[in-house]
Amino acid sequence: MQNETMPNFLKNRAFLTPERTAVYFKEQTLTFKELYDRTHETAGQIQAFGVQQDQFVGVLLKNHLDTVVILFALQLLGVKAVILNNRLSPAELVWQLNDSKVASLILEDSFAEIEQEINQQTASLKTITKERLFQMEAAMPAIKDEICLSQICTIMYTSGTTGNPKGVMQTYGNHWWSSVGSALNLGYTKSDCWLCSVPLFHISGFSILMRSVIYGMPFVLHERFDVERTIADISRKKVTIMSVVGTMLSRIVEKLEDRRLPEHFRCMLLGGGPAPLPLLQACVKKDIPVFQSYGMTESSSQIVTLSPEYSLTKLGSAGKPLFPAQLKIVDENGLPAKASEAGEIIVKGPNVTPGYLNRQEATEEKFHAGWFSTGDIGYVDEEGFLYVLDRRSDLIISGGENIYPAEIEATLLAHPAVADAGVTGIADAKWGQVPIAFIVKNNTVSEDELQQFCLEKLAKYKVPKAFYFIEMLPRNAAKKLLRRQLREWVADK
Amino acid sequence: MQNETMPNFLKNRAFLTPERTAVYFKEQTLTFKELYDRTHETAGQIQAFGVQQDQFVGVLLKNHLDTVVILFALQLLGVKAVILNNRLSPAELVWQLNDSKVASLILEDSFAEIEQEINQQTASLKTITKERLFQMEAAMPAIKDEICLSQICTIMYTSGTTGNPKGVMQTYGNHWWSSVGSALNLGYTKSDCWLCSVPLFHISGFSILMRSVIYGMPFVLHERFDVERTIADISRKKVTIMSVVGTMLSRIVEKLEDRRLPEHFRCMLLGGGPAPLPLLQACVKKDIPVFQSYGMTESSSQIVTLSPEYSLTKLGSAGKPLFPAQLKIVDENGLPAKASEAGEIIVKGPNVTPGYLNRQEATEEKFHAGWFSTGDIGYVDEEGFLYVLDRRSDLIISGGENIYPAEIEATLLAHPAVADAGVTGIADAKWGQVPIAFIVKNNTVSEDELQQFCLEKLAKYKVPKAFYFIEMLPRNAAKKLLRRQLREWVADK
Repeated sequence: MQNETMPNFLKNRAFLTPERTAVYFKEQTLTFKELYDRTHETAGQIQAFGVQQDQFVGVLLKNHLDTVVILFALQLLGVKAVILNNRLSPAELVWQLNDSKVASLILEDSFAEIEQEINQQTASLKTITKERLFQMEAAMPAIKDEICLSQICTIMYTSGTTGNPKGVMQTYGNHWWSSVGSALNLGYTKSDCWLCSVPLFHISGFSILMRSVIYGMPFVLHERFDVERTIADISRKKVTIMSVVGTMLSRIVEKLEDRRLPEHFRCMLLGGGPAPLPLLQACVKKDIPVFQSYGMTESSSQIVTLSPEYSLTKLGSAGKPLFPAQLKIVDENGLPAKASEAGEIIVKGPNVTPGYLNRQEATEEKFHAGWFSTGDIGYVDEEGFLYVLDRRSDLIISGGENIYPAEIEATLLAHPAVADAGVTGIADAKWGQVPIAFIVKNNTVSEDELQQFCLEKLAKYKVPKAFYFIEMLPRNAAKKLLRRQLREWVADK
Repeated sequence: MQNETMPNFLKNRAFLTPERTAVYFKEQTLTFKELYDRTHETAGQIQAFGVQQDQFVGVLLKNHLDTVVILFALQLLGVKAVILNNRLSPAELVWQLNDSKVASLILEDSFAEIEQEINQQTASLKTITKERLFQMEAAMPAIKDEICLSQICTIMYTSGTTGNPKGVMQTYGNHWWSSVGSALNLGYTKSDCWLCSVPLFHISGFSILMRSVIYGMPFVLHERFDVERTIADISRKKVTIMSVVGTMLSRIVEKLEDRRLPEHFRCMLLGGGPAPLPLLQACVKKDIPVFQSYGMTESSSQIVTLSPEYSLTKLGSAGKPLFPAQLKIVDENGLPAKASEAGEIIVKGPNVTPGYLNRQEATEEKFHAGWFSTGDIGYVDEEGFLYVLDRRSDLIISGGENIYPAEIEATLLAHPAVADAGVTGIADAKWGQVPIAFIVKNNTVSEDELQQFCLEKLAKYKVPKAFYFIEMLPRNAAKKLLRRQLREWVADK
């Protein structure tokens, strides 16, 4: 039990190293002391708004210094943040807000339209824009001096292969151990600085914010990925580490042309699926140290990482687990697979979620004796390096966003003219993959109509880029959709 | 609960980074894979000797590669190591072996005499020298693939202000969190290498061995502190960090004369009491980065550390707590003292022991609501920097070894000619402090006789360097010895 309590992260960091830089955002630079003072004030405003300890509060915010302040303010108050993906449609947001039973929602000023729609569709939810929040008179906030590692810090929603999205509970301990596991693997020095241009609402971005406060390390926050600013800030702000997905890395490599990244830059942490060989080769040529990794919302970011010295000899591998974590490959019966034998990847470790919010059944389904079934298929070689063959068999990864075909199919089936629907991903030069749909119609409907219908209900990146009308979907005897066959059809097109 | 299990440290490290150097000892260099293989074999020999999981096993070993192997072998088997101070007298050793109820004892070949004496005085204890151990035919060891952070890893004895020595229980978690707290504070890079010439039977040395396996970092092991070899190996082995006590640091500074340590050397971690100003100034002049620290067996090494940038502006301070830990100053009623007000130092954190072995009462006395009462006196300034005024009020620190006057007094009182005894420390140019005794005799006895008597019962470094015969000891109304007054008498001499 003694191992469970720790001083509240940001407050402790501001006490230990008040003068160190915490964050660079546009023209602003805040030390940990300044960040804490702003966060303390905001905590008072959030409390004045009526938010109480242990409540769940939704946040629908863009990459911005204010978001950092609000997220830490919630931690100071011991409030659980339900961090919402900005790109979701109002219908998707309402679903997640209801599912997580949030008491209130803090959102971007520019989301006024969404606020209206949310207010219409949720009964007792109190919403506030950050502009209004920052105008409130601050109460004296009831700061939690200590946090408990087993307490929930954040909720992030993830869809599965079937059914509705589920809220992944991420404890303070999950974030702590993820940060520590990463530090032991990548190393950490006082001159480190991490560039965050991935979304803070994803675990890839949020985990950078947690590392910053746990390590006492500055991070550079960008509103979005901008290749010019990335290259400029790596030099100007002495960035040493950056989190990227494949498409971002390609664009950096392209933009660099004959230039090199400065010597102090030591790590491209690559997530969101394996990188293609030509990209890795280009990185080797340009001395860009790429750390490929494998992780998910449920493992609070990377759980397996490949050091650059192996990036070509172990081509396509995601590496080995972080020190506190473990992985295994199991066959259909849950028995350990031999080296080089493909099976489901299961993982275990203190960075792995305790389960899904209000989803006892789904949690029990995915956890067995402390091991989490990722649903992903892969193998480990003789030396223990992981190779991921297929992400959750049906998962489509588009520009770092996970897209679950089942969710899009469910949306399409809600259209009166759609009798059956099957979705799969196709390769795309810019995004890695994009979704496309196969439709069996029972009435007249055009591709445009279906696209418009999806746009109303789904985040834009989930809307199929093409619709193919067919007679019948490939299903097995149990009527299970054979998405593998869809992919083969696509290959033929 | 999920946060509690982790892969067995050495086995995991050998899996993750088999080719990295683990340890340099004399002319030998072992990778983690080689260290694991040797350790695995030794685990089989220890098992063949009859040692079983969850037993307590004493180890009485010098700084040597074999000791590293044996200590890790015990971890592989899930056996708790009672790590004994080599300098103790046979009587002291027997006391600790009986107190910890060890099943067996592994000892240095050169301790044959001690072995005999131990065998005479302990009934069921099985002893084995390492030479005999390494000749045994290895069984297939029952390796524990996972350890539990709350399990006991090691026991180290420490004396208190009163009574007998107590066995400090150090869990795997204590060592883990200590290592992680240190890495977050000092930083950790792949080029780090730690020099260990402090004893492995002290937490200062043992914690280096644990950091090595947790970080995947090589360490250089010396049999004892040798100033020439230290300076040579810092260059040859590219040592970046070294643990020292004040007397070691002085001798390094002296020996260096006009030379500098190489650029790659980045941290002198200084424990065992505050350093004198001239020494710190000499280090500043020579660009030796000194990290002063405060810690104890109960906190599994440093818990408070001062970065070198503060070593002169915060002269005499031990710094601020490691990230996962906390400290407070309290008055006699246990209420928090104000800034700059002296009081008892109490500490809390996942690196702090769960308590003393088989000492429920002593544990309850020292722990209140998760806070451990160190018995040391100090204050924190306005910015939160700790200043230690007095170590356990009576503690004598001699060449990095803790000496408790009460223990020596109890020994002296056992002599038939001694009616009363009081011990205190005096300053010593070589050792920092040495103990001296004030004796009230009730029969004829010489200084030599008393010295000889002590030598038979106590470790040599504990034997008083001088004996003063007096009429009466200064005691208060409650008959409590006023050691402060003894110190004043000494000052007058």
